Amino acid sequence: MIDHHLQVSDLGEKKLIERILEKSESLLDFKNFLNNKDNIPYIGDDAALIDFSPELNNSNYYLVATSDLLIESCHFPKEMSYFQMGWKSVIVNLSDLAAMGSKPRGILINLAIPKNLKIKYFDELIDGILNACSYYKIPLLGGDTNQAEEIIISGTAIGEVEKGKVLCKNEFGKGDLIGVTGELGLAALGFELFNSQYSSKIEKTVNNNEISEEFIDLAIEKTLKPMAKIDEGIFLSNYASSATDITDGLASELYELFKSNKINYSKSKLGLKIYEEKLPFFNEISKISKLLDKNPLELILHIGEDFELLFIINKDKLEDMQKNNNPIDYYIIGEVNDRNKVEIEFLNGNIKELSSKGYEHLL
Amino acid sequence: MIDHHLQVSDLGEKKLIERILEKSESLLDFKNFLNNKDNIPYIGDDAALIDFSPELNNSNYYLVATSDLLIESCHFPKEMSYFQMGWKSVIVNLSDLAAMGSKPRGILINLAIPKNLKIKYFDELIDGILNACSYYKIPLLGGDTNQAEEIIISGTAIGEVEKGKVLCKNEFGKGDLIGVTGELGLAALGFELFNSQYSSKIEKTVNNNEISEEFIDLAIEKTLKPMAKIDEGIFLSNYASSATDITDGLASELYELFKSNKINYSKSKLGLKIYEEKLPFFNEISKISKLLDKNPLELILHIGEDFELLFIINKDKLEDMQKNNNPIDYYIIGEVNDRNKVEIEFLNGNIKELSSKGYEHLL
Repeated sequence: MIDHHLQVSDLGEKKLIERILEKSESLLDFKNFLNNKDNIPYIGDDAALIDFSPELNNSNYYLVATSDLLIESCHFPKEMSYFQMGWKSVIVNLSDLAAMGSKPRGILINLAIPKNLKIKYFDELIDGILNACSYYKIPLLGGDTNQAEEIIISGTAIGEVEKGKVLCKNEFGKGDLIGVTGELGLAALGFELFNSQYSSKIEKTVNNNEISEEFIDLAIEKTLKPMAKIDEGIFLSNYASSATDITDGLASELYELFKSNKINYSKSKLGLKIYEEKLPFFNEISKISKLLDKNPLELILHIGEDFELLFIINKDKLEDMQKNNNPIDYYIIGEVNDRNKVEIEFLNGNIKELSSKGYEHLL
Repeated sequence: MIDHHLQVSDLGEKKLIERILEKSESLLDFKNFLNNKDNIPYIGDDAALIDFSPELNNSNYYLVATSDLLIESCHFPKEMSYFQMGWKSVIVNLSDLAAMGSKPRGILINLAIPKNLKIKYFDELIDGILNACSYYKIPLLGGDTNQAEEIIISGTAIGEVEKGKVLCKNEFGKGDLIGVTGELGLAALGFELFNSQYSSKIEKTVNNNEISEEFIDLAIEKTLKPMAKIDEGIFLSNYASSATDITDGLASELYELFKSNKINYSKSKLGLKIYEEKLPFFNEISKISKLLDKNPLELILHIGEDFELLFIINKDKLEDMQKNNNPIDYYIIGEVNDRNKVEIEFLNGNIKELSSKGYEHLL
């Protein structure tokens, strides 16, 4: 029996999603509905897998589908242009496909816009959407247009992935290595830079040539016009076993992999350990963090939107991957052990359990 | 060059969508992006078609995908329960699949809810979503949860349809017949009944036994808890050539078929003609309309949300269909001619061009 005065903010986004999953399991006959002979995971991962046309029994591909909703006041900093809002609404969805190792095939976009939005801004928004589609070579498949008090964009990306190459969140073993596809913390820094109390400090540092203007631009670009690591995901799908995209901070995503493994293997004692010295980030982030009285690890671990991929790979497979002539950029930051925890080893040798906090709605 | 002071409300939903399509055609290489060897229509229909895994070159199925966004203040009458909001958010998407003759395979739902929504209402909303999924035997595949000032639900339904059986909007010829799968105007009547200035009049009529309480309940049920004509769509896909679902009123949907045919066949002079005497609606709708000083045709032609299917079928195919032992309910309401117009013939023999007005956002 639930307390009738409880509000959704008393639970928060993650508990609400667990609640949906529980109800869903008791109400819906998934295995049957999905014709799920392969026991494919269906929910809780970056994207859903569907064994398309099982009547044919010969498809080597899963259909991959993922959907994300962005709301102006919540997801778009006021510094963001309409073009960038449109662009980002495509990227957040493609990033989920990338995290499954999937090739994108198309996107549907539902728009809601204020009645008094100027046509030139509407056009910019659409240009942002279509330019992102064009960049990633996918068609805009459909969607609808509605009226709302602020801009709302709901995207659904559809892709395909070869069976046996899917990058779920839960598949790894002791001794496997943990990697990321790029430097972390840049987008988080970009968000900090929008904070007006910092801007004069930063300006001074740039004028003193302590930090280059190019670096500041790079951080802001990463925040306002992120990219989806599609090629990296497809490349990794040949070698890695698990992946997710970093949207809510590294720590939160490590816990996603950790918990997903537990859900699928209830007796698993696998743990994840990362090393501060191995975390890839630009020197400038340390410099600016110091200036702003922030711990750079805070930006890297607990603030998100890097859209880099976090992956886990078997050691032998990593060797195979290194033999490939067209490798991707990546950094190994830790390994899987049997300590049943998510931990970080600091530069001084101290080991601490990571806090799982990341950005969460409705809290 | 556009006027920089123009607002989206100066154009309205349909012109805005045309604007997106134009931009999209000039920016995106669709045929290439979709591996579109079959020249399948890709946008502007009830749902998008994707030739999945063309690498295999042997799939007999198209993937079908469609997405709709519902906003509390705009799409949900205040009489609607949270359960019904959840239910409707699934139905509107499944109805688009039905209109393609597609079998549904799953749905993704993005939710945005106010922070102070009570958990019991959140649970009702989710129950409505899951009960609709369960009724139509599809899994809830994923989605996300966000915070907003009011309830926003964006659904994306995914289905499949056999190649050669797709019900697009544009395929018909002179002499073909126009049909609908059920009585029209009930949902429109339900919406009228919510109008408080009418409720006392209606109550009086019910008390006088002129209209049964069951009929009033039926109309309100149709408005608050609509159904998607999935079985009808799959059945029709074996015989009919074109279809759409009636969401914005019959007239508006007839123009959808008419215009879609023109887009695909620029020299087409095909026209659509319906007959007042053939329009299927309950007697009670005439009675109540009279009471409310409304023209019943207004409810049937220009107000929507019936979610019945409007289809076009070749005469010989209709004969084949009638031989099937498990037919669906349907009514033939008109035919395709070469008068290049959308017309109605009234009971008195007068013929008039139909107004295309239907419900449109952002106007």
